[in-house]
Amino acid sequence: MAAAAPPPSPTPAPSAPTGLSDSTPGGHPLFSRIRLATPLDIPYIQKLIHQLAVFEKLADLCTATESDLASTLFKSPPFHSFTIFLLEVSSRPFENDSAFHSQNFTPIERIINLDHSVSDPEAEAFANGINGDVVVAGFVLFFPSYSTFLGKPGFYVEDLFVRECYRRKGLGKMLLSAVASQAARMGYGRVEWAVLDWNANAIKFYEEMGANVLPERRICRLTGPALEAHRDAN
Amino acid sequence: MAAAAPPPSPTPAPSAPTGLSDSTPGGHPLFSRIRLATPLDIPYIQKLIHQLAVFEKLADLCTATESDLASTLFKSPPFHSFTIFLLEVSSRPFENDSAFHSQNFTPIERIINLDHSVSDPEAEAFANGINGDVVVAGFVLFFPSYSTFLGKPGFYVEDLFVRECYRRKGLGKMLLSAVASQAARMGYGRVEWAVLDWNANAIKFYEEMGANVLPERRICRLTGPALEAHRDAN
Repeated sequence: MAAAAPPPSPTPAPSAPTGLSDSTPGGHPLFSRIRLATPLDIPYIQKLIHQLAVFEKLADLCTATESDLASTLFKSPPFHSFTIFLLEVSSRPFENDSAFHSQNFTPIERIINLDHSVSDPEAEAFANGINGDVVVAGFVLFFPSYSTFLGKPGFYVEDLFVRECYRRKGLGKMLLSAVASQAARMGYGRVEWAVLDWNANAIKFYEEMGANVLPERRICRLTGPALEAHRDAN
Repeated sequence: MAAAAPPPSPTPAPSAPTGLSDSTPGGHPLFSRIRLATPLDIPYIQKLIHQLAVFEKLADLCTATESDLASTLFKSPPFHSFTIFLLEVSSRPFENDSAFHSQNFTPIERIINLDHSVSDPEAEAFANGINGDVVVAGFVLFFPSYSTFLGKPGFYVEDLFVRECYRRKGLGKMLLSAVASQAARMGYGRVEWAVLDWNANAIKFYEEMGANVLPERRICRLTGPALEAHRDAN
């Protein structure tokens, strides 16, 4: 796809009606972690991509298989090419898994205090097999871009996605901010992504994060047989 | 910058009035060549980028120095990261310069038969020092992108520029088609770039090349202090 998914709204979820046993203000910590994805995460990533396609009503355009992803991702060190941050959540603190620490990136952890626990109907499909109740909740895929005017690289965010039951908790902001933070620390000049012009909530969210929407630019795309027609054009 | 420059129109230049000594139908061959740029080309590339900024009335946003470009470009093999095709022209056939042949890309040459020779007021500034009357006429900068829906890489074209006196001769199409051809031969899924929505000529040109303009997508950009503010956000 070409546009980042509409992100979770930065506004907090409304409080549950009083009297529900599962409603304790701030009494339900959600442990969240952003780490670099690895090839072992491809089954989760493939499912998340297809959920994103369904969300955008573009499922018929989404053909990516696990095999497609395995043959094209994780071929370069993180940040040099296509890079994925995976978002995981747990109701318990994360074990300090040193496997996810690298020279390039230290996982980002945050505790989100919710008024009620999250009911995740897909917890089983997205459970991380190693760490008990850890589940994969979302991802962001990005890659280096280049600004000739700045004479500097940047990052382009291709996809940003949080599964439905984890939206509106600040997790989308956490993912996008992780990319922006990485760009700033690498001395990069900008982070860009696409948004659908009718998605006012997403635009408001991005503007609150400090982004500008460039009103005049349109994306041109050459694909399929029209692209293939250029194969021997030269 | 974020948008490809409006390209030369694909329509041929109008014929010169009859009677001019410099007007012989098709009698003025312009030898054109597309090759991979090298670090030695940075002075030309820097000047072309600034001409593009002036053309777009964005010169105040264009700060890239030769030093900026030298420290950020040509760090990876061609097509793995930021890649530049340079367009050169000459009134004489190119010498067969094997230095420009590589495993990755064989230069593309074409003879364009013009009705009158091109008067290039900047020929000196853009003369290639090695090969006599060869001058640099334009460039295209692109880099790998990724489509999660296709599970395949593509190319994103950041800049496409042809100097003014060489426009409307099919050279912009030749540059863009060279990128598309490369993408098709590498099995990539698409080529994308940005266009300004009011530039009807450019849009028509791109559509004639087989591209679709995606009407709903808008580019979001996080840069400058707003980007820097995320540095320590996590």
